[in-house]
Amino acid sequence: MTRAGFTLGELAEALQAQLDGDPSRVVTGVAPLGTAGPDQISFLTDPRYRDAARASRAGAFLAPRDVADLPGPTLHCATPQQALIDLVRLFHPSVSTPPGVDRTAVVAAEARVDPTAAVGPLTVIESGAVIGPGVRLHALVHVGPGVQIGEGSVIYPHVSLRDGVRLGRRVVIHAGAVLGADGFGFAFDGCAHRKVPQVGGVLIEDDVEIGANTTIDRATFGDTIVRRGTKIDNLVQLGHNVEVGEHSLLVAQVGVSGSSRLGRGVVLAGQVGVADHVTLGDGVIAAAQSGIPSDIEAGAKVFGTPARPLGLARRIMVAEGRLPELLQRVRALEQRLEKLAARLGEAPAEGERG
Amino acid sequence: MTRAGFTLGELAEALQAQLDGDPSRVVTGVAPLGTAGPDQISFLTDPRYRDAARASRAGAFLAPRDVADLPGPTLHCATPQQALIDLVRLFHPSVSTPPGVDRTAVVAAEARVDPTAAVGPLTVIESGAVIGPGVRLHALVHVGPGVQIGEGSVIYPHVSLRDGVRLGRRVVIHAGAVLGADGFGFAFDGCAHRKVPQVGGVLIEDDVEIGANTTIDRATFGDTIVRRGTKIDNLVQLGHNVEVGEHSLLVAQVGVSGSSRLGRGVVLAGQVGVADHVTLGDGVIAAAQSGIPSDIEAGAKVFGTPARPLGLARRIMVAEGRLPELLQRVRALEQRLEKLAARLGEAPAEGERG
Amino acid sequence: MTRAGFTLGELAEALQAQLDGDPSRVVTGVAPLGTAGPDQISFLTDPRYRDAARASRAGAFLAPRDVADLPGPTLHCATPQQALIDLVRLFHPSVSTPPGVDRTAVVAAEARVDPTAAVGPLTVIESGAVIGPGVRLHALVHVGPGVQIGEGSVIYPHVSLRDGVRLGRRVVIHAGAVLGADGFGFAFDGCAHRKVPQVGGVLIEDDVEIGANTTIDRATFGDTIVRRGTKIDNLVQLGHNVEVGEHSLLVAQVGVSGSSRLGRGVVLAGQVGVADHVTLGDGVIAAAQSGIPSDIEAGAKVFGTPARPLGLARRIMVAEGRLPELLQRVRALEQRLEKLAARLGEAPAEGERG
Repeated sequence: MTRAGFTLGELAEALQAQLDGDPSRVVTGVAPLGTAGPDQISFLTDPRYRDAARASRAGAFLAPRDVADLPGPTLHCATPQQALIDLVRLFHPSVSTPPGVDRTAVVAAEARVDPTAAVGPLTVIESGAVIGPGVRLHALVHVGPGVQIGEGSVIYPHVSLRDGVRLGRRVVIHAGAVLGADGFGFAFDGCAHRKVPQVGGVLIEDDVEIGANTTIDRATFGDTIVRRGTKIDNLVQLGHNVEVGEHSLLVAQVGVSGSSRLGRGVVLAGQVGVADHVTLGDGVIAAAQSGIPSDIEAGAKVFGTPARPLGLARRIMVAEGRLPELLQRVRALEQRLEKLAARLGEAPAEGERG
Repeated sequence: MTRAGFTLGELAEALQAQLDGDPSRVVTGVAPLGTAGPDQISFLTDPRYRDAARASRAGAFLAPRDVADLPGPTLHCATPQQALIDLVRLFHPSVSTPPGVDRTAVVAAEARVDPTAAVGPLTVIESGAVIGPGVRLHALVHVGPGVQIGEGSVIYPHVSLRDGVRLGRRVVIHAGAVLGADGFGFAFDGCAHRKVPQVGGVLIEDDVEIGANTTIDRATFGDTIVRRGTKIDNLVQLGHNVEVGEHSLLVAQVGVSGSSRLGRGVVLAGQVGVADHVTLGDGVIAAAQSGIPSDIEAGAKVFGTPARPLGLARRIMVAEGRLPELLQRVRALEQRLEKLAARLGEAPAEGERG
Repeated sequence: MTRAGFTLGELAEALQAQLDGDPSRVVTGVAPLGTAGPDQISFLTDPRYRDAARASRAGAFLAPRDVADLPGPTLHCATPQQALIDLVRLFHPSVSTPPGVDRTAVVAAEARVDPTAAVGPLTVIESGAVIGPGVRLHALVHVGPGVQIGEGSVIYPHVSLRDGVRLGRRVVIHAGAVLGADGFGFAFDGCAHRKVPQVGGVLIEDDVEIGANTTIDRATFGDTIVRRGTKIDNLVQLGHNVEVGEHSLLVAQVGVSGSSRLGRGVVLAGQVGVADHVTLGDGVIAAAQSGIPSDIEAGAKVFGTPARPLGLARRIMVAEGRLPELLQRVRALEQRLEKLAARLGEAPAEGERG
């Protein structure tokens, strides 16, 4: 699926870039600064790597407008990170799968599969499911009863979508993810944990991406919701009735407990945990492994367990590093003070540790 | 599967509740206080939500006996949380699947499937497996050689049960869970990690529920055991030879290392980690993200890494928040003491940081 | 698959052990000290369990050369841990599956499956995949287009291998693991997170073992790499472009963020998190739940969030336990110093908290 090559002139036009160099030169692929060879174009999207760019063997470069000293022809772009995405897509265009249902797929009579959808081998579509136009279901997917999948969505192998799950358009779900398992709700009756029936669903809005082996539980009532444009990494857990706002990022192994609400543009770094019934305002950013026990106001950056404002959390961590020394200093102070007091004829302090 | 409606009189009888209001009034569903409409019954099971109940548009309420001021007919119950479970089950009765083996399932000749069991599409049952009465295997399940599944158990899609796994009665296993993978046992021989053969099994007792994408490894010898009535959330890891006591709760992303033993009624909140060969007594409760390196006595509540008694852990966390300030105070004390000492004609203290 | 029994003489010869006891005595299985009966042989590989060995009912023992006082015939070995592996393999030899492709597997015409490989029921092998000699694919595996699987590898049910994944020889992948899902790469364009195409692959070298439901993402460019002999536990996450050196151990629920490089012989205990673009030198050991934000030099042992040298981290944890007390001591010092100062006629200190 990789095109043989492009001239730099073609790339400049496609990326709306300004070319400094020979427009007839051909490059056959994209590669990072450290591994690109003379046939490849590389990219400088982060100024920290300027030295690596100067040392690169790449045959051409994509770079910001103000970078002029690279060792090869350079495509100057206003937004190099965005241009890089377009550049990679030129060399690696999305593969379009021929529509149709594989002969080994098992599709219930009462399911509706759009004729432009592609259904892979040994995928199961249960009764009442609705598969929209251009959807791609890879092999061995399970689509439960009544599940709805919007236009252009892509579902990778071994994904489980239980009844009550609805996906918007252009949703991507990576292999092994489970949407719609029962929320973790039990009530102890004095003898045993009785199951609280979980009769809600899961609503995933447009342009959401969900990572491999991630789990998103169905709501007790109503819906667990992931709003438009949010991206979720692998092995993330969202409990019942969680709502994640638009354009948020949840990095791998994050866990969000039941009924918590994340605003728009929230970023939770890897392994962060959020307690239940917590509200995180728009734009909250939590550093890796933070534990969030209570509400956080919009725009705050937090870190640690319990999560504290980032600046304070860092000062605490620095101070923790000096804690053993601090203990010694306090002991020294106590002894010294005691000696001074003795010289002044005072009795030892109560509870003195001297 | 949802019944059209019930009169409040019918509900009062079914729930053994005392009705304050019109018994002929019909409600068509259950919903939480904030979203219930005039056709629905809502519930007040936690006194914290009393204001929300007073403001609710619900057509009727389920509430404790001592709550009398709700804005609609009220069913008064001694145990409203338990009554709520019954109420939801009335509106959403369990679906019974017709028994039989789907024509696309692959069942080994030497496997025994009870005629009252239901086996979904493309499920694989290997040789020697025994599927009990009323068991439901959803689609795309893998049941390994010799696996035993007790009466009334429900196994969701993409679950893997390897040889040596035995499930009791009424066990529920959510999608993507893996039971019986090899424990993580290796011995370094000076050149490479040699695999210690994992020849034990996994025993899951009656009424256990296991969450989506959870992993429970087989024992090296003997069994990894989850005892009766215990509920395990999503993405939990139980290492080889772990034993979890009866009626325990393990919340999402908990990890328990090899050979650790949890007592009865233990509660591990989200993302808790337990080291190997650790014993947790009956009723131990660990708050979220705790790291437990060593034994904990019965009944203790712990928090933090390393896990400490809850009260101490909270005081430490409060004190940590004041740590940067504490450093400054100690520095001020040192300087002030030095000045005092100087006034008294003393030499500066050794190692003085003044 | 379990042989009926061996004489101690046979075992001594097979394990190159020195037998102290009757060589004609027969044992029928291996079991741990606490559960072994008179027909079984048990083992003492860790001197901490010497008392348990003395109290064991086992019919025979495997033990180090210097242990002479066990209550039964004893096989003395130079490396008892290694001998135990051989002993268990004698009683539980590896099962060889007959080669061939199950009639319900779905194999693309353009895939190449070695005639000595075994392909289980309902496994899907896509176009261009190459399955080497002696490979065993269990049931319900998904092998994506062009995937290569080296000689003698074993892939358990519900594993997903996307295009661009190459496995070496004798690789073991446990159920539900996902290799080759897209890395988590997005660039915010001011309105939405645009996906950075992930066009690299995953390279797993010889003798690697990967746990159940673990996820290893494909590289953005190039390869995510796990080097020879490394063992990875369940529910581990490796981000795009991660490289893990040879003979490393990654315990359950570890997460390694994008582009980080782990040296040879690295050990990450359970739930450890490693930030992105971090380098861990050869032999680094991180204790459970550590959070590693930056490079660690070879041979270091670290603990905590942020990870610090193990000794310091332990001293900090001890000091943290005394933090509430320390606050009180500093307050007492301040008061006492103020009193002394007052006696000497000094004004109170600025900002005094007394």
